[in-house]
Amino acid sequence: MELILDKNKKKEHLYLEVFHYYRELIMEKKLPPGSRMPSLRKCSQELKLSRTTIENAYLQLAAEGYIISKAQSGYYVTDIADRQHTSVRKTEKHAQTPCRFDFASSGVDRESFRFDLWRRYIKSALRQDERLLSYGEPQGEADLRDTLADYVRERRNVLCSREDIVIGAGIQSLLHILCPLLGQRRTVSFPNPSFVQGSTVFHDYGFQVDYRNKDCDIIYVSPAHMTKWGDIMPVSRRLELVNYSAAHGSLVIEDDFENEFVYLQKPTPSLFGLAGGQNVVYLGTFSRLLLPSIRISFMVLPPELSVLYRKKADQYNQTASKAEQIALCQFIRDGHLAAQTRKLKRLYSVKLKALRSAVREVFGKDAQIQTGAAGTSLALTLSTTLTWQELQKKAQTNGLRLQLLREAPGKITLILSCSSMSVADFVPACKLLKDISQIQN
Amino acid sequence: MELILDKNKKKEHLYLEVFHYYRELIMEKKLPPGSRMPSLRKCSQELKLSRTTIENAYLQLAAEGYIISKAQSGYYVTDIADRQHTSVRKTEKHAQTPCRFDFASSGVDRESFRFDLWRRYIKSALRQDERLLSYGEPQGEADLRDTLADYVRERRNVLCSREDIVIGAGIQSLLHILCPLLGQRRTVSFPNPSFVQGSTVFHDYGFQVDYRNKDCDIIYVSPAHMTKWGDIMPVSRRLELVNYSAAHGSLVIEDDFENEFVYLQKPTPSLFGLAGGQNVVYLGTFSRLLLPSIRISFMVLPPELSVLYRKKADQYNQTASKAEQIALCQFIRDGHLAAQTRKLKRLYSVKLKALRSAVREVFGKDAQIQTGAAGTSLALTLSTTLTWQELQKKAQTNGLRLQLLREAPGKITLILSCSSMSVADFVPACKLLKDISQIQN
Repeated sequence: MELILDKNKKKEHLYLEVFHYYRELIMEKKLPPGSRMPSLRKCSQELKLSRTTIENAYLQLAAEGYIISKAQSGYYVTDIADRQHTSVRKTEKHAQTPCRFDFASSGVDRESFRFDLWRRYIKSALRQDERLLSYGEPQGEADLRDTLADYVRERRNVLCSREDIVIGAGIQSLLHILCPLLGQRRTVSFPNPSFVQGSTVFHDYGFQVDYRNKDCDIIYVSPAHMTKWGDIMPVSRRLELVNYSAAHGSLVIEDDFENEFVYLQKPTPSLFGLAGGQNVVYLGTFSRLLLPSIRISFMVLPPELSVLYRKKADQYNQTASKAEQIALCQFIRDGHLAAQTRKLKRLYSVKLKALRSAVREVFGKDAQIQTGAAGTSLALTLSTTLTWQELQKKAQTNGLRLQLLREAPGKITLILSCSSMSVADFVPACKLLKDISQIQN
Repeated sequence: MELILDKNKKKEHLYLEVFHYYRELIMEKKLPPGSRMPSLRKCSQELKLSRTTIENAYLQLAAEGYIISKAQSGYYVTDIADRQHTSVRKTEKHAQTPCRFDFASSGVDRESFRFDLWRRYIKSALRQDERLLSYGEPQGEADLRDTLADYVRERRNVLCSREDIVIGAGIQSLLHILCPLLGQRRTVSFPNPSFVQGSTVFHDYGFQVDYRNKDCDIIYVSPAHMTKWGDIMPVSRRLELVNYSAAHGSLVIEDDFENEFVYLQKPTPSLFGLAGGQNVVYLGTFSRLLLPSIRISFMVLPPELSVLYRKKADQYNQTASKAEQIALCQFIRDGHLAAQTRKLKRLYSVKLKALRSAVREVFGKDAQIQTGAAGTSLALTLSTTLTWQELQKKAQTNGLRLQLLREAPGKITLILSCSSMSVADFVPACKLLKDISQIQN
């Protein structure tokens, strides 16, 4: 095996070729476990590539566990090749075909995110040495809060100042700060039991958690994500909710998850906006617009809670990465978040239609499909003699990941997400699903 | 004014010259608010620099608020020059001389952190596109947990597997997960009221918070940071605590903050190690070793709590940035954390001695100083007729930041931190402190 390099390729990708070259040598044990990698200098001379290129390739190999560095000595091949061979035995519990089709993903479309662009903003943020040498503001970076105030005013009619915005690493981090501010309110209602992360926090704080009970002190809703297949709350119902909660003194927590992906109608107004900023807490997140691995969410507090929060603000450390906050602020100001949102909305709208067509094509015109006005998923009800456990087991064996909505005798309803899968896979994935749901064990 | 560039300089710094050049033009209003910046193409032609260099300079200008981009149109100068001039009036509440000497900092020494190195690791992490497209593991990235298990075993004699480690964005995020696991335990004792962030979480969860009360169900201690001036818990006391808590069934939470900065004696064993991993929760953090703005902490759970946690693990989302976790894992594996720790330990040890000398030089041999065996601060008691409020006000006017430990009639005890200040500033800062504490209003 020889490394043949196309030197005309763009420089950023050269290191990947070096990476793949060595990865193969290691996995085929031509470089056996424990052997020493050539030094950067030597390797760079032999391959006639820059030291940086080699170093990047080595860093990547190390990051993925193929080699490991020993201080003052160099890089050594790990036993990854051995481990791969025995991994089936070791992790018998997880023994399964690699996932070919993932209908259960909560990730984002791999083509949709401009990694190069995000890397540039992170790089620029990491150049602000002075700013990174200190702890972040407990409430979140002030410039990001300014930018978010503009963002929610323009897009969601949420009027607030930077003082009312709290940034945190995900919705749970924000609820951990919010719950202790809620005083005498002790009961909370969720639309259904599916948002476990949210209800867990309330439960942990000793709240009584209930479902669809409008007599609770706190009403938690996701108006743009009422069901997993994308039902949204109509404006009439939003007004009703705002009026009811105002009359009964209950607090509404509006989790505006996926409000960006409402396709079939005009953007619906936020509850916070409809209520004139009274008695509603607004929650926003960027995990579906950027990368799920970037942990930045925010909440907008109504006036009384904002006052209570500021008295305690210094008692909570900021959880979100400062570098990522700085990068996101600039990313939004330069218009990239708006562009990314438009792009994703177009993309998911097309993909969701394609998925619906694929389901109809494979399961026939009478397939029981539920679709909504938003989101990245549809619900499909299958007639099958299998139980969910049986179906899931067969799916795993066949490299298919599924997500259950509910099970009834002879019927299984699945949530099929289009977000991570490629359009070309929809029909084959549906065919596979049909096959395994019809064949007995 | 003309931009004279030394083209022989290293390329990374060229953009900074462009940045400084424009910053001055903007602050001197030679480029007035609202005026359009030259396009990247034009500017790059005129200055004979690459577009990337210009773009990096513009990004930096934008990041610091000097210019703002308008989509499809280019960059425009903001009103920052106006705002700077009127800022004294606008923020009257905070009107104060810019900080010259910061004795109250919790940041890190600006010379100590290798930003270039960290940037390289982040860059490498951000290249792992596939990994970043999905949510992180709730418990934290598995490879980082493996690395941390090795790290605490080698350095702190904490024996655990990756299953027992939970990663989170700061100690509070971890306590938010820990507290609901503590079942019937309802009282917690802290050594003193200074760690507000910690006691707040327990308080929020309805625990009774007490101080120096060994009859509580939970004992929270920072054995390497018993006092703000660096007292550490001796081994005999550690053994006593471990035995006492085992006998009484109380749980110890060991916050190993600044254990890396124990100068005057051999590293003391961890409580977790002394207790054989029973009945102790170990907390570790990297904010003092890397950047405070990087939010990665971890906890090691003893067996019973580890089992309880895993049952609920999926109910909590990970709070720490995935990219930063990937970068930190590789950074530790490549030996950089160990090197950084050695470097900081040497640096702070020298700085703390220099600060002590400076205090003695300025305040005389009878100055009341308290020092410990660890940390980055000492305690200084001043005889003064001023109250703390008066002293603090005068300090602010003179650009000095102070931190109060306690106040008694005629006496004020301050905590002086050496971490962010340069050694050359110690004597002038102490002289200033002496001056303002002796002069009446």
